[in-house]
Amino acid sequence: MKNLLDYNFPQDLKSMDYKELDLLSAGIRDFLIDKVSATGGHLASNLGVVELTIALHKVFDSPVDKIIWDVGHQAYVHKILTGRGDRFDTLRQFNGLSGFPKANESAHDAFDTGHSTTSISAAAGMAAAREIKGEKYEVVAVIGDGSMTGGMAFEALNNIGDSKSKVIIVLNDNGMSISPNIGGLSAHLGNLRTSRGYLNIKNFIKNRVGSIPNVGRNIADVLAGFKNDIKYTVLEEGGVLFEELGFTYFGPVDGHNISDLVNAFTRAKSLNEPVIIHVLTKKGKGYKNAEKDPGKFHGIGAFDKETGELLKKSSGPSYSEVMGNYLLEKARDDNRIVAITAAMGDATGLGPFAKELPDRFFDVGIAEQHAVTFAAGLAKSGLKPVAAIYSSFMQRAYDQLVHDVCMQNLPVVFCLDRAGVVGADGETHHGVFDLSYLMSMPNMTVLTPKDGNQLEEMMDYALKLNGPVAIRYPRGEAVYDKTIMSTNPWAIRNVRAEKCGRVDIWACGKMAQCGEETVRILKEKGIEAGLVNVGITKPLDISAYDSNAELLVTIEDNTLAGGFGQTMAAALAEKNTKVLTFGWPDHFVEQGSFAQLADKYGLTPEKIAERICEHIEGKA
Amino acid sequence: MKNLLDYNFPQDLKSMDYKELDLLSAGIRDFLIDKVSATGGHLASNLGVVELTIALHKVFDSPVDKIIWDVGHQAYVHKILTGRGDRFDTLRQFNGLSGFPKANESAHDAFDTGHSTTSISAAAGMAAAREIKGEKYEVVAVIGDGSMTGGMAFEALNNIGDSKSKVIIVLNDNGMSISPNIGGLSAHLGNLRTSRGYLNIKNFIKNRVGSIPNVGRNIADVLAGFKNDIKYTVLEEGGVLFEELGFTYFGPVDGHNISDLVNAFTRAKSLNEPVIIHVLTKKGKGYKNAEKDPGKFHGIGAFDKETGELLKKSSGPSYSEVMGNYLLEKARDDNRIVAITAAMGDATGLGPFAKELPDRFFDVGIAEQHAVTFAAGLAKSGLKPVAAIYSSFMQRAYDQLVHDVCMQNLPVVFCLDRAGVVGADGETHHGVFDLSYLMSMPNMTVLTPKDGNQLEEMMDYALKLNGPVAIRYPRGEAVYDKTIMSTNPWAIRNVRAEKCGRVDIWACGKMAQCGEETVRILKEKGIEAGLVNVGITKPLDISAYDSNAELLVTIEDNTLAGGFGQTMAAALAEKNTKVLTFGWPDHFVEQGSFAQLADKYGLTPEKIAERICEHIEGKA
Repeated sequence: MKNLLDYNFPQDLKSMDYKELDLLSAGIRDFLIDKVSATGGHLASNLGVVELTIALHKVFDSPVDKIIWDVGHQAYVHKILTGRGDRFDTLRQFNGLSGFPKANESAHDAFDTGHSTTSISAAAGMAAAREIKGEKYEVVAVIGDGSMTGGMAFEALNNIGDSKSKVIIVLNDNGMSISPNIGGLSAHLGNLRTSRGYLNIKNFIKNRVGSIPNVGRNIADVLAGFKNDIKYTVLEEGGVLFEELGFTYFGPVDGHNISDLVNAFTRAKSLNEPVIIHVLTKKGKGYKNAEKDPGKFHGIGAFDKETGELLKKSSGPSYSEVMGNYLLEKARDDNRIVAITAAMGDATGLGPFAKELPDRFFDVGIAEQHAVTFAAGLAKSGLKPVAAIYSSFMQRAYDQLVHDVCMQNLPVVFCLDRAGVVGADGETHHGVFDLSYLMSMPNMTVLTPKDGNQLEEMMDYALKLNGPVAIRYPRGEAVYDKTIMSTNPWAIRNVRAEKCGRVDIWACGKMAQCGEETVRILKEKGIEAGLVNVGITKPLDISAYDSNAELLVTIEDNTLAGGFGQTMAAALAEKNTKVLTFGWPDHFVEQGSFAQLADKYGLTPEKIAERICEHIEGKA
Repeated sequence: MKNLLDYNFPQDLKSMDYKELDLLSAGIRDFLIDKVSATGGHLASNLGVVELTIALHKVFDSPVDKIIWDVGHQAYVHKILTGRGDRFDTLRQFNGLSGFPKANESAHDAFDTGHSTTSISAAAGMAAAREIKGEKYEVVAVIGDGSMTGGMAFEALNNIGDSKSKVIIVLNDNGMSISPNIGGLSAHLGNLRTSRGYLNIKNFIKNRVGSIPNVGRNIADVLAGFKNDIKYTVLEEGGVLFEELGFTYFGPVDGHNISDLVNAFTRAKSLNEPVIIHVLTKKGKGYKNAEKDPGKFHGIGAFDKETGELLKKSSGPSYSEVMGNYLLEKARDDNRIVAITAAMGDATGLGPFAKELPDRFFDVGIAEQHAVTFAAGLAKSGLKPVAAIYSSFMQRAYDQLVHDVCMQNLPVVFCLDRAGVVGADGETHHGVFDLSYLMSMPNMTVLTPKDGNQLEEMMDYALKLNGPVAIRYPRGEAVYDKTIMSTNPWAIRNVRAEKCGRVDIWACGKMAQCGEETVRILKEKGIEAGLVNVGITKPLDISAYDSNAELLVTIEDNTLAGGFGQTMAAALAEKNTKVLTFGWPDHFVEQGSFAQLADKYGLTPEKIAERICEHIEGKA
């Protein structure tokens, strides 16, 4: 067999027989393990779709046929098979290959993805366009079982079921997430009415359930149980739900058997109607370390291929862990505190909370809209809900934040994890819009801790506040800042850390460190500069404002459009102080380390100091 | 029988027998017709739930038991039965009774609503809180069949099915929207596989469908078909979907038979599990004019009780009609143009488009998220999609705008109808956040036409633009401005209408008229003022900026937080011009006419001129 990179894929697939395709699968797995162990990335999900992706490219003619990868972190094999294998050494790096589909990389990436549950809607649009234009091509959406819990999937299924557009949905059901406990459905089945025509379905489920030992109900089961509710509903009964919605259902198909997959896809292609193909795959397939612990290898840093151990381990806790541990501590003493997340329990640091206080922990699955209004219901009933959701995913619940929480001024604490630029995940995952959207919501308090200590202080404050409050903090290891004066606990206000000079720097959250360094550089250049640690961006607190500064500088890890700097500039628009704002530009920021991106976009202390000097000199 | 307002409801209901309750129903209907004919409001939906609401208050003990009204415009009867009958003369008026549930009006309003599909999530939260606190009360969500198409409903059903929390869902299915044509499902049923255990369900449906004559498929049927897909799936088969999700299903129940309703609610109350009660009601029930044309009486102005005719008719077309008619005209010549809406077809002026070009019109139901990403798919395939959605409902698709449209810079035209303060619907329906959220999205162009002519010019421009563009325009009759110089077609920029004076007024969209009047008042006071018609707020166009003004004034029909004025102030933060911004304050603006609210919040020309004078004098 030739080297993987010497083939001309996807064309070369067409002439390969199943034996060759199996060899190719093995080759791709070795390649993935080799490359991702060096760069880090999403490994387990890609190992799970090797055969699935090969079969798709064998049957369909990309880029004429459109393949849409839901979420998109499982598109590595697709990238290898569409001429991008040679770029894997740059995977997820600055100026390198994206970890997600990007039309600007290849015409084979039919639709850019990153957030979950968008693929069916996009496919519906493409299929409708095809019909209007009288063109001929296939539209295929590949979506995981987890993504199917997002409400948008049902909106799209309904629409396609009505339009009868030919859309092929490949439901990638990775077996590993099926837990033996089927949650609420299990106990409930006995109570179901036995009249009506679907008795036999109930018996079918009952029999299956009866054969599974009851292993009790810990938190992992609750999570899995939720997935299973939908899984059993939509899948295990032979797709009754899909068929009722107007789809033809095939499955389940062995997702690691290329010939079975090719047959199913070929059959779907031959029909002129919406089809769902239910494919069972195993996350981490073919790499023992990942098969054993697929969660660890979902998104992972560089690791040792043999042992599976991370090459670099963080020395301190992440902001997520600081939040989760502190919340648990508070919750032990206050039984009104409850925690909510949307399929980000461990990732937001809520693992220990879920384990110790399972009755007060709610993972609602990939369903941010429901998570927020559910929290509103809890708050309305006198509890203290804390909803931990990534900044970028919270965008899904914009209306619920405004309409269900802020409008009723309900005391819900929102922990926006991974706010600001997140690094390797790039455009789709940077949390650079939250200050803008949160600050325009009436009644919302918006806090930006500068380090781990301040995050704890702010959690404490937020839990006492009688209204909605959002705390946004960055991805990664918590900084513990010793040099900037520690804020006064209980007093949440923007605190002056350095007395005002000609220039006054107001730095939000994590940018406090950048502000401090900028002050140092300016001093070296003979310019006295003040520093304010901006911990609260809404309501706007300018009590530390000093009219002696001739130039006020703001620094934030957010888009400038509608962000803190603009708000500050507007607040000072009637005063004589001029304002210079630093933040991310008004376009989508690409992948790269924070340092690389800060350098490119002028957000390093050196570049900020330089622009301040230019400004001062320009006018002096 | 006593006068309706002399009872002490809901207590007095408890002792009434069914004969008395029927008399009460008739009394409430007369009261509703009498009051709403004078004030305007949502009539048909309320006439449909008279018995349903009486039965709810007979069985449940509000406010201990929590009743949540999805959308909430059908809560008039509930308001009458909870001590607010005497305020109906002020319905939907400034300082009057709200047309939606409001906790600040009554403890009987368990959760404030306005947008659709929130009730099940809120109910889930309240039920979870009840269990954590060990309290005892019932939680009832009343939701219409239309609202069930929103994805958030499925997210919530999944969650409750898993948690097994006792939540009672009353599915208010108003018969009138059931069309004999069942859309995509009908033709598809023949293709369904006949293997597996649910054969008998298919036959059940097949038999039903077989008995319905095929009436063809016009646009009304497409809409109804969509509703029916979900209806047939979730309802007509005896609730198989709900049961599989973990609910017990009762129904269908005659929604105009109080004793049947009381029995069903009592039975649901006696169980300790999630229950769905499927209730069939008739919109407009008991008032002939509304039964004949329930659409007309959904939300209606003051009307003649006898004839059902509106007392005031508008003389010219609405902005919605201007948009819809112009789009149709353009679409006749350009077959790439397609229109999308989310259950707002007629209301956004797309009725004629839907009728003439049904193959290029897509109503996806109450599903804004899907609507936007579906449009992205259409655009990605080379079409020119125009999505018409109310400003306030577009909030549901914030993430889809950012992630699916703007990130790929796709040419989708968004027509944000009912932007700005909308009047009687109040807090939940004012579209006062759109400038803020749209302006922080990279690649988005944001246009604010000042009148009907400019709306057409902007539609034309938008359809030629190769990227996302939003046009936001107000509710109601289109203004045709003759006095402010007409803008130059094709050149979309902020145009100077009046040469710059000491003060320069930049007025967005509909506020151009207010700006013009302000200029006139200032001139009377001896202050020369300039005027710029701000038609584009993003990208920020300050080509008309004149540094001669010592004070720049912005006026917008949007919240000030993150809006045009702040952006302008930030853009001028390095210059010497001071900026004074006028817009809505950073809290939720209540119901009232635009004039009343403008007066209260200082947005009339008189009040703006006054503040400008104070400012000028204060510094002079």
